Amino acid sequence: MGYDCISCTTDYGLQDGFVAACHGVIARITPTTRVIDITHSVAPQDIRGGAAVLAQTAPYLPNAVHLAVVDPGVGTARRGIVLLAERGTLVGPDNGLLLPAARALGGPRAAYQLENAEYQLPRVSATFHGRDVFAPAAAHLTRGVPAAEFGRPIELAELVELPEARVEVERDGLRSEVRTIDHFGNVQLAAPASALAECGLTPGTRVRIGTGTAAHECSVHHTFGDAVPGELLVLVDSAGYVALAVHGGSAADRLAARSVPMFSVTRVAR
Amino acid sequence: MGYDCISCTTDYGLQDGFVAACHGVIARITPTTRVIDITHSVAPQDIRGGAAVLAQTAPYLPNAVHLAVVDPGVGTARRGIVLLAERGTLVGPDNGLLLPAARALGGPRAAYQLENAEYQLPRVSATFHGRDVFAPAAAHLTRGVPAAEFGRPIELAELVELPEARVEVERDGLRSEVRTIDHFGNVQLAAPASALAECGLTPGTRVRIGTGTAAHECSVHHTFGDAVPGELLVLVDSAGYVALAVHGGSAADRLAARSVPMFSVTRVAR
Amino acid sequence: MGYDCISCTTDYGLQDGFVAACHGVIARITPTTRVIDITHSVAPQDIRGGAAVLAQTAPYLPNAVHLAVVDPGVGTARRGIVLLAERGTLVGPDNGLLLPAARALGGPRAAYQLENAEYQLPRVSATFHGRDVFAPAAAHLTRGVPAAEFGRPIELAELVELPEARVEVERDGLRSEVRTIDHFGNVQLAAPASALAECGLTPGTRVRIGTGTAAHECSVHHTFGDAVPGELLVLVDSAGYVALAVHGGSAADRLAARSVPMFSVTRVAR
Repeated sequence: MGYDCISCTTDYGLQDGFVAACHGVIARITPTTRVIDITHSVAPQDIRGGAAVLAQTAPYLPNAVHLAVVDPGVGTARRGIVLLAERGTLVGPDNGLLLPAARALGGPRAAYQLENAEYQLPRVSATFHGRDVFAPAAAHLTRGVPAAEFGRPIELAELVELPEARVEVERDGLRSEVRTIDHFGNVQLAAPASALAECGLTPGTRVRIGTGTAAHECSVHHTFGDAVPGELLVLVDSAGYVALAVHGGSAADRLAARSVPMFSVTRVAR
Repeated sequence: MGYDCISCTTDYGLQDGFVAACHGVIARITPTTRVIDITHSVAPQDIRGGAAVLAQTAPYLPNAVHLAVVDPGVGTARRGIVLLAERGTLVGPDNGLLLPAARALGGPRAAYQLENAEYQLPRVSATFHGRDVFAPAAAHLTRGVPAAEFGRPIELAELVELPEARVEVERDGLRSEVRTIDHFGNVQLAAPASALAECGLTPGTRVRIGTGTAAHECSVHHTFGDAVPGELLVLVDSAGYVALAVHGGSAADRLAARSVPMFSVTRVAR
Repeated sequence: MGYDCISCTTDYGLQDGFVAACHGVIARITPTTRVIDITHSVAPQDIRGGAAVLAQTAPYLPNAVHLAVVDPGVGTARRGIVLLAERGTLVGPDNGLLLPAARALGGPRAAYQLENAEYQLPRVSATFHGRDVFAPAAAHLTRGVPAAEFGRPIELAELVELPEARVEVERDGLRSEVRTIDHFGNVQLAAPASALAECGLTPGTRVRIGTGTAAHECSVHHTFGDAVPGELLVLVDSAGYVALAVHGGSAADRLAARSVPMFSVTRVAR
């Protein structure tokens, strides 16, 4: 098929040479392939956070091999996999990190275990499979090596799956787990835009976020700038999820959201 | 004319997939164009800070389309623009972010509104025009689409302009707004090197920074290493501005500069 | 010989345009050369930290010119150099930053001073030789300019050398300086894997880290996942050094390692 680029998503951070070692390994195998870094600032070992950022970014990239490594089980029995999706291919540990992106790319189609030493570095360390196993696999796939060359096929149903995020839609509102908190402090819920529509919350509706003394009243808006500066609002974000935001500020700070796993958004009775 | 690269300057940070989504959109439209990230760590919604870093970096890049997004007004009536300069082209919101760079690139020549949906993503979100409007515009410009194709022309005099930074040059010194504080804690003033010369402050001159009990006495130097380790100094920085620095340390910390909008630098009478 | 890429290692950080200015200067001279950033988050002016990350990452890159700038002496009499190694070339200040990487790349072979103004920007600032001197040198080397064109040869024995890290291997354990602390809080010692073998500490051995009341007892393991979550362990890291780690946590925090220059790892008597 031919890939136009390799994307990289890890929790390696940018202060050490971990990411560059992966880029270097890729460049040695496939010197002209473009590499696009999705992020290397996934919180250490936060598989769910890595899965979310990968799934919502990958669809905007060219046809790619998506290399993703958030891998608390490195060096143990957990498998490394190639996961073919309808519009792209994913490489990483079999710990739930890749499946949400495979769905965002049209659905998973087939998986293979990474076990063929021919496509790994000559010495595989116990702690850095990103460099020694996953980056070489991504690069060799880009060169045209078929996925089946890497190892035995795995049934899709046998892949490790993250527990589904809790979202409850009711007549007058919704309750949802937090999905991500971004750099601006926008709090993205796991509830999709359709959930907001389903319970009749449209731009202009007054809602209550949270319950009891910790509740905040605000409005659903179309975009940040429809609120006044400093105002809390609910909107549909650019990835299609319900989000809590503050115009020109941080909803995460306003709502102390880093310690709150679930939020309710409920219509205010008039 | 032909562009050799696209540069990117935003306040998106690197922890989410925002930057990668822009890179991906660009790569889908113009797969072989080099992308150079200027920075994605502009303080959230700090238009003035983004304008400064873009203006002082762009002249060192190849002939480029400079994509810049610090955009508190996203989704509201603020315009998106293409701004042609003498040595490069800029794309971003019409909020003052682009004009200083256009001047650093030889001066603005013409501007057009970004309104032609043909050069935007099929679905434009209300909150992420970097991905949906600006990145596609930068990529299409690089492919050779003429600026006039994007929308109606705008008079240069009608573009939104940031208020000018305050700089006062007197006989025995200067007073100036802070322009940027860099990663090392160097405090760059808005006063250009010529202002220092104008008031006769040359390497070796003893000066007082600030006034009253918060004043610090130090020397004007040519470079950091001309001061002793830990010594405060005044120099002309690599962008041609007057800067306050500490050899091997942080002037921002020494002077508590993050809460001081203006500094005076005055010759010490002998 | 021909280089396949330029790598960049600095303490410039990513918040300002310093790195992009270097990338821009490179792209103007050698527009199609791939640039791989090793890191720009070396602690400000930490030559030893920069030398360590460069030395352990460079061997994984393609044949490259490695541009490295951690340069407290910029603008003073310290020399800029090109350092030819067996498998790659290094460019930067002569302050000890480059030699460890030259050794990791098969050994230093020859050095030349950077003094030919023809291969520098027309105006060299006093404070930003990364942009004005080193980046142009790296780019011109990549274009095929011979190293001897940049200036007079320097005897390898005359290059500035960092003091060697202290490592003491004894019958029942080792004492070693800290080499790096990574993003995950893994504490890498200057002792190589061979030192661990030499004193008979193999996976399964119980050891004591530190002494007195600050001592922690734990085991040597093959990889993180061989310990239980939250457990402290000793392992050989992916760069081949002895490291102190916590499975799913930060050994740097557990051991307050940021203020401890040396650690002992000693067999526990049974």
